[in-house]
Amino acid sequence: MKKVISLLGSTGSIGQSTLQVLKLHPDSFQIFALSCFNNTHLLVKQCIEFQPKYLVTKDTADAKFVREQIKGKSSAKVLSGSDGYEFIAGNDEVTDVLAAITGSAGLKSTYQAAIKGKRILLANKESMVMAGSLIMAEVAKSRGSIIPVDSEHNAIYQVLINHTNKFIRKVILTASGGPFRDLNASEIENVTVEEALNHPNWSMGDKITIDSATMMNKGLEVIEASYLFNLPSKKIEVLVHPQSIIHSLVEYEDGSLLTQLGCPDMRVPISFALGYPDRIRSGVEGINLAQCENLSFSKPNHQIFPCLNLAYEALEAGQSHIITLNAANEIAVDAFLHKKIKFTQIYILVRKALDSIKSMDFNDIDSIISLDRNARKKAQQTLMDI
Amino acid sequence: MKKVISLLGSTGSIGQSTLQVLKLHPDSFQIFALSCFNNTHLLVKQCIEFQPKYLVTKDTADAKFVREQIKGKSSAKVLSGSDGYEFIAGNDEVTDVLAAITGSAGLKSTYQAAIKGKRILLANKESMVMAGSLIMAEVAKSRGSIIPVDSEHNAIYQVLINHTNKFIRKVILTASGGPFRDLNASEIENVTVEEALNHPNWSMGDKITIDSATMMNKGLEVIEASYLFNLPSKKIEVLVHPQSIIHSLVEYEDGSLLTQLGCPDMRVPISFALGYPDRIRSGVEGINLAQCENLSFSKPNHQIFPCLNLAYEALEAGQSHIITLNAANEIAVDAFLHKKIKFTQIYILVRKALDSIKSMDFNDIDSIISLDRNARKKAQQTLMDI
Repeated sequence: MKKVISLLGSTGSIGQSTLQVLKLHPDSFQIFALSCFNNTHLLVKQCIEFQPKYLVTKDTADAKFVREQIKGKSSAKVLSGSDGYEFIAGNDEVTDVLAAITGSAGLKSTYQAAIKGKRILLANKESMVMAGSLIMAEVAKSRGSIIPVDSEHNAIYQVLINHTNKFIRKVILTASGGPFRDLNASEIENVTVEEALNHPNWSMGDKITIDSATMMNKGLEVIEASYLFNLPSKKIEVLVHPQSIIHSLVEYEDGSLLTQLGCPDMRVPISFALGYPDRIRSGVEGINLAQCENLSFSKPNHQIFPCLNLAYEALEAGQSHIITLNAANEIAVDAFLHKKIKFTQIYILVRKALDSIKSMDFNDIDSIISLDRNARKKAQQTLMDI
Repeated sequence: MKKVISLLGSTGSIGQSTLQVLKLHPDSFQIFALSCFNNTHLLVKQCIEFQPKYLVTKDTADAKFVREQIKGKSSAKVLSGSDGYEFIAGNDEVTDVLAAITGSAGLKSTYQAAIKGKRILLANKESMVMAGSLIMAEVAKSRGSIIPVDSEHNAIYQVLINHTNKFIRKVILTASGGPFRDLNASEIENVTVEEALNHPNWSMGDKITIDSATMMNKGLEVIEASYLFNLPSKKIEVLVHPQSIIHSLVEYEDGSLLTQLGCPDMRVPISFALGYPDRIRSGVEGINLAQCENLSFSKPNHQIFPCLNLAYEALEAGQSHIITLNAANEIAVDAFLHKKIKFTQIYILVRKALDSIKSMDFNDIDSIISLDRNARKKAQQTLMDI
């Protein structure tokens, strides 16, 4: 039986790679819906090539534009806004939802997929960061599932026997260390946006590339891993591994470490998630270790990358801190990308945001979104004062 | 329910490590029987410490000696010879059999455990090499199972999903390369027994240490992997990895490679096999990769280590060639250990043995044993002419 898939965020880096893999397997998948945030031109192109039933754009103006562009070339219905994203995430025909919208914008549609018991191919780590316990609870209730697409969590999922945390001592998330791995405290003060966007191993979107440079990305991954695999922070470690070949490890009680490794190409975890529980071709060769640079490992430098500890701190402090961390970080990264603040001020902004928040827990998605909005507003204000 | 275990070869390196692990879990295992080949003194000591129901020695003289030594300290019954080993391998009370007898001497008892549907913790690779298809057929018939203890096959078993070869492109057996990894053709001509016994990473018995130095051990492992995982020779590769931290890999169709890694300590695979499907403590810490030497990989040098290709050649030629390869190699290694031949003559002796054999298949264990004996005799004769 064909899997019927909605792509939340088909025009981003993960969305495009997913379509590349789906192209290799026309008999196994039916594309139900594609969606974009800003890139309507690419959405039109994808629509004509893949002929989904639905398209979703961010607003009615974009929807109108897209309708005109696809006229006569596709019979896809074009929806827009939150309702549109949630419709394609929860539709009864859909079996699989690729959650690949960047940032907190992906939360509500991921949540909808969780409520409706879909198999969620999760690339939107912010939804787990912001609402991990709520989403996991809905997935359990609806008998859905989450297969992580993030390379680190995907690696762990591949080697976590029966996908439970039984018998494990810890998980170890590997980190490339980003472009500034080897800088000292004074060098990192003056790095540019261009340097920060120049990731040594992975080709990704701008937000996540900056998060990699600050190592906040790894911090968010620690939080994501905590929810996905139901682990306390002390059972999640970070290990710098510049070659990005070993994608994370699970250590078992007997002293065995299991890992998945391979080329740093997102088509590999995407194919795993699409094919699961079978394995399907990704178009990526297995890595030839004899031709690789030697694999090296080191502990992260918390002085140069203080954002990593902020994430651990927020995870231990609870949900309101995590939501605030994530919101303030998005504002700070955006400000850095627009050259309004220095690289090292990303940490300062998030640090200030965490210092001003009280610990609270949330049982519904709207309260989370409301706290997220407030945290953003506050972070914007703090930005003025920096 | 306690697992009830017979240790075929409790006084060897694997047997001793197994007892170390069993000591950590007195509530989970009952030791049914211990057995030795030559080391009756250690057997007596183990008997007094672990109080098994049965002991087995190689002959009645040894049995008599052991009986006298344990008098008043243990009520264990002492058996001897083939019948003894087969009795403890197949006894109805026994659930698990550690097959850790070195060399072809382990064949009949492993076979008996297979017939009786035991869970076989297989450390005696020669039995799979000599009679792999017969043993696998018996295991399937009796609904028993084999959990490999050899670190390479154990690593593969740990990451082979559902323990089938579905969706895999190949398995990659890692090899330390042994003590002579970096020698050239003239240097390897004159290596001594002492140098060959000085393995860089693993502490093992003499026979297997020499096999590591010639890389025949890796060749035998290729053959073992072929039977255990039902793979043709072209799907089994060898990769030199001097640090012996990654213990072998499985490459899947999607480009993922899965692996088990850890300290080179046999208590890890032994604990996995004992505990399976659970995980139990081994007494070994997980490896701290940040403190490790960088991990490196290279292709094996077939000119310096021609024994590896002999094994591939035998695997492709069929069972009579494999049995001959293994028999001639045991004779050659013994001759080298006794300083009767040079290191490089191990290859020459096995090469000559393979050149003089015709291709045949065997459906019973006695024909295999008979061919093995003839091959040994022939190899002994060839030895005279070298």
